[in-house]
Amino acid sequence: MSVYTKVTERELGDWLKAYSVGTLVELKGIAAGIENTNYFVTTTHGRYVLTLFERLPAKDLPFYLGLMAHLARHGIPCPSPIADRANRLLSTLGGKPAALVTRLPGAVVMQPSPEHCAEVGALLADMHIAGQSYGGTLENPRGPEWRRETAPRVLPFLDEHRQRLLEGELEFQSRNRPQGLQHGPVHADLFRDNVLFEANRIGGVVDFYFAGVDTWLFDVAVTFNDWCVHADGEIDPARAAALLGAYHSVRPFTAGERDAWPVMLRAAGLRFWLSRLYDFHLPRPGELVHAHDPEHFRRVLELRIRDRHRLPWVQ
Amino acid sequence: MSVYTKVTERELGDWLKAYSVGTLVELKGIAAGIENTNYFVTTTHGRYVLTLFERLPAKDLPFYLGLMAHLARHGIPCPSPIADRANRLLSTLGGKPAALVTRLPGAVVMQPSPEHCAEVGALLADMHIAGQSYGGTLENPRGPEWRRETAPRVLPFLDEHRQRLLEGELEFQSRNRPQGLQHGPVHADLFRDNVLFEANRIGGVVDFYFAGVDTWLFDVAVTFNDWCVHADGEIDPARAAALLGAYHSVRPFTAGERDAWPVMLRAAGLRFWLSRLYDFHLPRPGELVHAHDPEHFRRVLELRIRDRHRLPWVQ
Repeated sequence: MSVYTKVTERELGDWLKAYSVGTLVELKGIAAGIENTNYFVTTTHGRYVLTLFERLPAKDLPFYLGLMAHLARHGIPCPSPIADRANRLLSTLGGKPAALVTRLPGAVVMQPSPEHCAEVGALLADMHIAGQSYGGTLENPRGPEWRRETAPRVLPFLDEHRQRLLEGELEFQSRNRPQGLQHGPVHADLFRDNVLFEANRIGGVVDFYFAGVDTWLFDVAVTFNDWCVHADGEIDPARAAALLGAYHSVRPFTAGERDAWPVMLRAAGLRFWLSRLYDFHLPRPGELVHAHDPEHFRRVLELRIRDRHRLPWVQ
Repeated sequence: MSVYTKVTERELGDWLKAYSVGTLVELKGIAAGIENTNYFVTTTHGRYVLTLFERLPAKDLPFYLGLMAHLARHGIPCPSPIADRANRLLSTLGGKPAALVTRLPGAVVMQPSPEHCAEVGALLADMHIAGQSYGGTLENPRGPEWRRETAPRVLPFLDEHRQRLLEGELEFQSRNRPQGLQHGPVHADLFRDNVLFEANRIGGVVDFYFAGVDTWLFDVAVTFNDWCVHADGEIDPARAAALLGAYHSVRPFTAGERDAWPVMLRAAGLRFWLSRLYDFHLPRPGELVHAHDPEHFRRVLELRIRDRHRLPWVQ
């Protein structure tokens, strides 16, 4: 259960008086998300999600909310933060930083088809392009510095094979960091559970709380490693072609991106293996129930290393 | 038919490349609206309305689009203008200023109940409050100056009774203009055909192209004269109580507004009688089919004059 902070209807009704969204009709906790407390909020004017930020650094919140507002303004189907009467997107509720955002339609698709992957690829490219004119800056909080800090803390929990894999990949990535790639705001966590589909159309892209500024190709690699692989980590060629082709048709990849693709897929695999190792071996209180098995991304990383000379790319 | 400017799927497909809304799925002309050409546009990312501005002064368009964007950001269910890749809300298509806005759900309710009127009253108050932090300025383009310019042009078409009514009311309004009332951006045309309901909930408020800065009470009076009257212009007490009570519960009326209410209802009646006289007697080419019968608002004005000492107000 991810409702860390209890909000009553009465508290919320009072809080909503600072907004222009009408009066409260229904309040319902959401049992998902590990960083925040989330509620579905229905008012006389619409359907919203209330988020209380439990752990994210307060200084980073304006970047996330501003990015969502910016992308929504450009027609990206993402949560649009609601401004209060003082025109602020960020407020306080129950002693926590809090935001009200629009609730999007649709449901997650955990067994995506190539068609779903094409929708995701095209939308990701649109997000990258729309994000170019966003003024906010926040270095990807799961970038190289985070890797250097996090790896030594999980190494003691690993067997020798996994220690060598982790140390070797950190070393490889630090020596092979691609240079000169296009960058901008990236979602950085566009997994299947963060995309809502209505029939075969994307109704919403959610959870921007791992977003940051990084290379666009890193975002493609993160997305690819989730949408285009089987449960065993192997690539599905049809989904891979669909996602990459649709992205490319909206925002053509560059020659530099083609060259960097094998390294980036490994970097994306490493990032999630490392965070899952950390969450698994060093859980925060009450969080163990959410920890994903780190082994999946260990396999993904090993397979991307194995596949490095025969990876799918656009035609 | 209100499609003055023909847009082909090919032209629109090219134009949409400057946006992040995906690719064109369907384009369909809308036979409504007398100031603009409107199309329903469906893309792979969502449903939009494309508006080509045929007659509105170009200098006023940023006020309208900025106001809609501002209100949408505050949770008001109104069309949200989509920014292009250059982050602009206003573009050009077919040689006309053009904007793409979100399409809202719902359908108009031409026989409103008191419950519908309560929704409208509450939303109007929310719009006024949310609009307070909007920085744009545009004097109501159908204000006193417009009245002075327009009246002499329609007077020659009227019989003696109507001439006396019009001249008398212009004189009365110029002598009795309420002072010191709260003001801000107002919709100024919140008639039944500009509100979309989904069941009994407002899905959208549309057509902000008569908006401007004026007193909030004027906006209430315009809305009241449409939502709370019968076809013969007489007030429906139940709908009147519902609309005014709901507005008041969100944004309490002031003593000054109570005093100004009879004058303002007459001003609102005069404004629409005058514009309908103008559109009826001096139609623009191809527009006659849209002209409303001016007599309805002549009756509304006369009845508000007759009722001036026994008008509904909040308890």
